[in-house]
Amino acid sequence: MKYIGGLSIVKPIEAQFLQYVKKMTGYREAIGLMYWDLRTGAPKKGVEQRSEVIGMLSEEVFRMSTSEEMAAFIAKLSPKAVYEELDDVTKKTLDECKKEYERNKKIPADEYKEFVVLCSKAESVWEEAKAAADFARFRPYLEQIIEFQRRFIRYWGYEGHPYNTLLDQYEPGMTVDLLDELFSRLRERIVPLVHAISAASNKPDVSFLFAPFPKEKQRAFLLELLKELGYDFGKGRLDETVHPFAIGLNPNDVRITTRYDERDFRTAVFGTIHECGHALYEQHISESLVGTPLASGASMGIHESQSLFFENMIGRHYAFWKRHYPRLLQYAPTQFADVSLDAFYRAINEAKPSLIRIEADELTYPLHIIIRYEIEKQLFAGELEAIDLPDVWNEKYEQYLGIRPHNDAVGVLQDVHWSGGSFGYFPSYALGYMYAAQFKQAMEKELDVAGLLEEGNIAPIREWLTVHIHQFGKMKKPLELVRDATGETLKADYLIQYLEEKYKALYRL
Amino acid sequence: MKYIGGLSIVKPIEAQFLQYVKKMTGYREAIGLMYWDLRTGAPKKGVEQRSEVIGMLSEEVFRMSTSEEMAAFIAKLSPKAVYEELDDVTKKTLDECKKEYERNKKIPADEYKEFVVLCSKAESVWEEAKAAADFARFRPYLEQIIEFQRRFIRYWGYEGHPYNTLLDQYEPGMTVDLLDELFSRLRERIVPLVHAISAASNKPDVSFLFAPFPKEKQRAFLLELLKELGYDFGKGRLDETVHPFAIGLNPNDVRITTRYDERDFRTAVFGTIHECGHALYEQHISESLVGTPLASGASMGIHESQSLFFENMIGRHYAFWKRHYPRLLQYAPTQFADVSLDAFYRAINEAKPSLIRIEADELTYPLHIIIRYEIEKQLFAGELEAIDLPDVWNEKYEQYLGIRPHNDAVGVLQDVHWSGGSFGYFPSYALGYMYAAQFKQAMEKELDVAGLLEEGNIAPIREWLTVHIHQFGKMKKPLELVRDATGETLKADYLIQYLEEKYKALYRL
Repeated sequence: MKYIGGLSIVKPIEAQFLQYVKKMTGYREAIGLMYWDLRTGAPKKGVEQRSEVIGMLSEEVFRMSTSEEMAAFIAKLSPKAVYEELDDVTKKTLDECKKEYERNKKIPADEYKEFVVLCSKAESVWEEAKAAADFARFRPYLEQIIEFQRRFIRYWGYEGHPYNTLLDQYEPGMTVDLLDELFSRLRERIVPLVHAISAASNKPDVSFLFAPFPKEKQRAFLLELLKELGYDFGKGRLDETVHPFAIGLNPNDVRITTRYDERDFRTAVFGTIHECGHALYEQHISESLVGTPLASGASMGIHESQSLFFENMIGRHYAFWKRHYPRLLQYAPTQFADVSLDAFYRAINEAKPSLIRIEADELTYPLHIIIRYEIEKQLFAGELEAIDLPDVWNEKYEQYLGIRPHNDAVGVLQDVHWSGGSFGYFPSYALGYMYAAQFKQAMEKELDVAGLLEEGNIAPIREWLTVHIHQFGKMKKPLELVRDATGETLKADYLIQYLEEKYKALYRL
Repeated sequence: MKYIGGLSIVKPIEAQFLQYVKKMTGYREAIGLMYWDLRTGAPKKGVEQRSEVIGMLSEEVFRMSTSEEMAAFIAKLSPKAVYEELDDVTKKTLDECKKEYERNKKIPADEYKEFVVLCSKAESVWEEAKAAADFARFRPYLEQIIEFQRRFIRYWGYEGHPYNTLLDQYEPGMTVDLLDELFSRLRERIVPLVHAISAASNKPDVSFLFAPFPKEKQRAFLLELLKELGYDFGKGRLDETVHPFAIGLNPNDVRITTRYDERDFRTAVFGTIHECGHALYEQHISESLVGTPLASGASMGIHESQSLFFENMIGRHYAFWKRHYPRLLQYAPTQFADVSLDAFYRAINEAKPSLIRIEADELTYPLHIIIRYEIEKQLFAGELEAIDLPDVWNEKYEQYLGIRPHNDAVGVLQDVHWSGGSFGYFPSYALGYMYAAQFKQAMEKELDVAGLLEEGNIAPIREWLTVHIHQFGKMKKPLELVRDATGETLKADYLIQYLEEKYKALYRL
């Protein structure tokens, strides 16, 4: 640390601030490892005590994020003359800490505690209600959660639409105005396409996808795939779990997990390519951000853009399977014996309206999200109440997807998010698709993606993503990343174009 | 928490103290998990950052153990009238915290820091010196470390011999007076036995021990063994590592690790039984001690007594292999095809003077320790200096074991302990043998150990250990445990008797 002239006051405080933040980041890393361990092989009987330890460290991180020390750092480093002297990484770190501090401080502590207790209760009630397909049982809890969120919105304040402040938690800078424009455009073009596909006679045969495929063989194939995709096993590892995830403990330790279904190899193969997309992002964040809150994805949606890009735009690409299908056959020589590459490609890209979001294909998936977005937005505009949700939900499914849930378990009760108070989160999933399509379009100006996939030369693709996206971590906001990487503001058109071209060809419409 | 009459002041402070200690224990658990992860499969490139996180949490635990809050708890809870009102667990917890506080506070912070820096330098110098078999290179560092330790002894104070305060760190209550008595008695009887065995013509054939034994087969055999020994996989797991260890994160999560040598199955088999002994101890500590520093072994030596009891007194017992040798043959059908149970039993119990402590058998091992003890004791009595060590070392090896190191790498430089400032630690290893033999003798008054081993009925043995040792964690001091469990003070006789009977029979002396 140097003490030079006029900076002699700023620099020591800046260093202390970074040290403080580094400790918080370190504690989060410890929490992350405990979380990973719990989900990959921790002994069952140790779970209770381990959860308490996670609680202790989480509480400490929360305390540090709202402490008087943090307030003092913010007060000392924020004045314009001081702020401008700060290193860029410190500036963005300070911005993050300030945002978190203000969000947390604006809610009275006892109200927040009440809310946390409510959510933990609500989640178990939601589970029961879902099992019984009985929305009425969950409704009183949902009503209270919505009430809390409406109050929090007032505490936080907002510009434009009240829902904007919820969006901002997951997708900084995103607004209702922009989403309305993007989603309505997407909906207008995708809904007719989905309806046309539903009516098409030319449907793929998918029966062979369910042929038995031993776990060990799947794993061996996956390891080969991951290496080719450039997942660095010196900075990560692959384990098994029930609900797969990727976790970046730090950019040099980014682990992925998967689940094997011996009756449907797609679970592990596409799930792992998806998690690999998340992991490649975090493995390529700049070393200079380690120890700060910036060493993670720019937003939920940008993170999802990377996993979806790999899962769908690479992993469901014809050229990719032109290379890998013969390899897959080596691990499963009998299962696909009579299946041509074309038939395989059509099967893994089957599109079909369905009721359950997490089982949806890439074409219909955004419609599931748009439905949730429209509902959430109306809830916080005061245009809807909890009691209205089942009917509105079912109407929208009928209208957009042409199918109607026969009960609330496969309708409005299907997702866990609302029971945990997560409103404003869903749009990120669909934004991930849009970002991915727009990145792909920009990438294709420079690279022959299909040609590279066929050669198995993923490095230039990965490098493009590192140069334009990965390295920055949270240094850029999502819309800034999109603009800098693609030269344009975010548009729905690239996703529409991608889906129309792909699915019209697949279904010969 | 109840507030009753006169306790209304004590109880809240007691509760706060326990809460404070629980947090320290929780942080230690997080550190433990990171340590385990680093040694079993953490990605290589993430190690540096993970080590920093371990450092942060360790620093925080150290800070808490010497903080003003801790000082206040000690001050408020220690006065006799208050102390006597405390719950037993709180009393012992307070004793532990007080001991740690005083040890840490008595050394000036800057001196301690200097010492830590010295040790970290000394360890790498020791590695080089050992590789070059050049004691002179290490000597200046060792001299300084000894000087620091002598000064620390003065800061800490001591009763009787200055070395007592070093012993007390690892074996609370142990003294030079007692060790002199125990070790000299042991030495007098073991040395002639070792010499007789060296001279015996009747030596076992061990060549078949080195037959190739595939790792997967070893692992399958181990899993079967561990289940029979009663290792609870609901509270633990078995992983691979370079230097095997057991680690109790809490009594419900006690993990063991092993290393496979495909050219010597003994590494994994006896190593795992050894770690299983440590693990069974921690898995059976009373639930009431969870969250306190008492939920661990009573001392280094008592811990070692459990691992050695399982490794040697069970795992090298004839009756044990009478049951398991036919099973081993199923996993290694060709390797031991022409080897009788008797020949196998003799081979795994080969005793032979050797230069390296960690490769020694159960008969000669205590002599390696006695040598180190005698040297350490003299160092801190001011009767020896670093410069004298190689000669003294070599003399003692010649005298006790009948062999003389041909260089310092296989002599005085072989162990890492002194380079890290760990003096007073070695005696615990030999005490472990004595405790184990005395426990065995007491156990055999109630149980037919050989009969149970032959039946594969380990439960009564394990229960005896739980009732008399395991459950108490650190609630009892080592010598108190021995007295309560065996009805006698600690004696060398039981170990002598065990070794004489076993080895005279084995070598037909």
